[in-house]
Amino acid sequence: MRMIKSYRSEFQAYVEGLQKQIIAAIEEVEDGQKFQYDNWERPGGGGGHSGVLENGTVIEKGGVNTSAVFGELPEAMRLHFGVEEAEFFATGVSLVIHPRNPLAPTVHANFRYFEMYDQKSGEVKQAWFGGGADLTPYYLYEEDAIHFHQSLKTASDKSGDISLYPRFKKECDHYFRNTHRDEARGIGGLFFDYLKEGKDDQQLEFWKNYTQNIGNSFIAAYLPILKKRQGLAFTEEQKQWQEIRRGRYVEFNLIHDKGTHFGLKTDGRIESILMSLPPTVQWKYNHHPIVGSEEEKLLSVLQRPKEWLER
Amino acid sequence: MRMIKSYRSEFQAYVEGLQKQIIAAIEEVEDGQKFQYDNWERPGGGGGHSGVLENGTVIEKGGVNTSAVFGELPEAMRLHFGVEEAEFFATGVSLVIHPRNPLAPTVHANFRYFEMYDQKSGEVKQAWFGGGADLTPYYLYEEDAIHFHQSLKTASDKSGDISLYPRFKKECDHYFRNTHRDEARGIGGLFFDYLKEGKDDQQLEFWKNYTQNIGNSFIAAYLPILKKRQGLAFTEEQKQWQEIRRGRYVEFNLIHDKGTHFGLKTDGRIESILMSLPPTVQWKYNHHPIVGSEEEKLLSVLQRPKEWLER
Repeated sequence: MRMIKSYRSEFQAYVEGLQKQIIAAIEEVEDGQKFQYDNWERPGGGGGHSGVLENGTVIEKGGVNTSAVFGELPEAMRLHFGVEEAEFFATGVSLVIHPRNPLAPTVHANFRYFEMYDQKSGEVKQAWFGGGADLTPYYLYEEDAIHFHQSLKTASDKSGDISLYPRFKKECDHYFRNTHRDEARGIGGLFFDYLKEGKDDQQLEFWKNYTQNIGNSFIAAYLPILKKRQGLAFTEEQKQWQEIRRGRYVEFNLIHDKGTHFGLKTDGRIESILMSLPPTVQWKYNHHPIVGSEEEKLLSVLQRPKEWLER
Repeated sequence: MRMIKSYRSEFQAYVEGLQKQIIAAIEEVEDGQKFQYDNWERPGGGGGHSGVLENGTVIEKGGVNTSAVFGELPEAMRLHFGVEEAEFFATGVSLVIHPRNPLAPTVHANFRYFEMYDQKSGEVKQAWFGGGADLTPYYLYEEDAIHFHQSLKTASDKSGDISLYPRFKKECDHYFRNTHRDEARGIGGLFFDYLKEGKDDQQLEFWKNYTQNIGNSFIAAYLPILKKRQGLAFTEEQKQWQEIRRGRYVEFNLIHDKGTHFGLKTDGRIESILMSLPPTVQWKYNHHPIVGSEEEKLLSVLQRPKEWLER
């Protein structure tokens, strides 16, 4: 077996640095309100730093969390990966930003690294990167969707492999789907997982750089959209529509999201896992927007994934 | 194999009658607002009648739904029951009432019957009853919890078997639990399922009567509590606490509830399945009530199931 290089401390330092950068960028838009840090420890090993902002002028609720956990692989993960007892390490940054203004989109991003060790030698037996970013508008500004996707594509193409953007864009459309309603959670972005070592020794290094390139593009992909939309005037009806659509966000996260289920099954820190849930939500029975309205226009786009960029 | 009597049309008529009674009883408390009926058909066979009241004076959102569906057993159910292809029939009434006043509790009840047929003979091969009722207060009035449990116990004891109340009370505490937060959804009630034929030919008839006795006790178990609490003055803070606790209700229904997952996997009618979700909900990060407050008193009761009645 070839020896796999460990990115353990390097990637942990990366996600913790990215967390600080993203929090600083959002605080610049927010009117004086700061993120509060909450540090927690995991009984089995490791812990995390949750950065939380609630009830801000621009951000109604936002969380930018890092964690670095290790120890015995929990049973749920052993069953999932089909492996024997093993030690593991996982680190990542995960964020969800819910702006107050319904004309500004919610955003989610996550960049993570996982490794498992050989029980005898203690060497890295398996390692992979994963992550992505996706946008959930309540009102569709096509230029925002294009800007977001173009930013991610430019970052993806830095790898030299232009097949990766369409591949991971498609995975994103596939993953963030409320299958029970046959509609997408939002207008997508990128989603990738299990990016492992290949025949070439340089493959894992390639994926590390790839994941970091996408991570580094996040601020320029989202913040200009937030800045442009956060100050626009909106109506009570638009706020209500945002809260109804936030209900769909909750449905996805609690019914379908593997990350959430995984966290709940492996005794993750509940408040950090459920940080993603929106601040105020409504469920109305059998709600349908008026034909021809902006609300209906959004729904028709969510029903069928769209190519936002020219080929 | 002994022949099993079918309760198909008898129990369908029962749940549809109970739906009308419950709706009439709630409309009597509500200030003029009526339930709207919404009838739907299931592509594979059967359908249902959803009764919905939104934005009432007393009831902020309520649904009292019946369904009677039949046809080929969906794959998800075949796998669940570990059976080959079969025809099935299922009928039931399911309700969730979310009062506007945070001092009035949310209630849920469900009474159902299921049968499967032998592919060759077409005779009933398996049949069972299930159901229950449980209460979710946002503020704890012990007398309400006792009244609710006493009503269910009296109905349960009509069967002549006084071991059933403690047995199904325990199952209710076990089932309606947000295991990820290690707390109960509410103060419980009764929960029973797979009540099948036994050695005695009269066993299924016994369970039918049992289920109907519990169903018939629902109005007297809940309505007096609703009447007593709906007019009480409440504060903004109490309303906010209700909305935060409603978030836990959503968590249970979307993460843990087998009925919800089952409906979603078997192409049930989404809007009827998710009718149970509350009208307005909040998620606050890491919210903890003040020590010694009424809110904290509720939580401490939810953390450990309580015996509400004297033995």
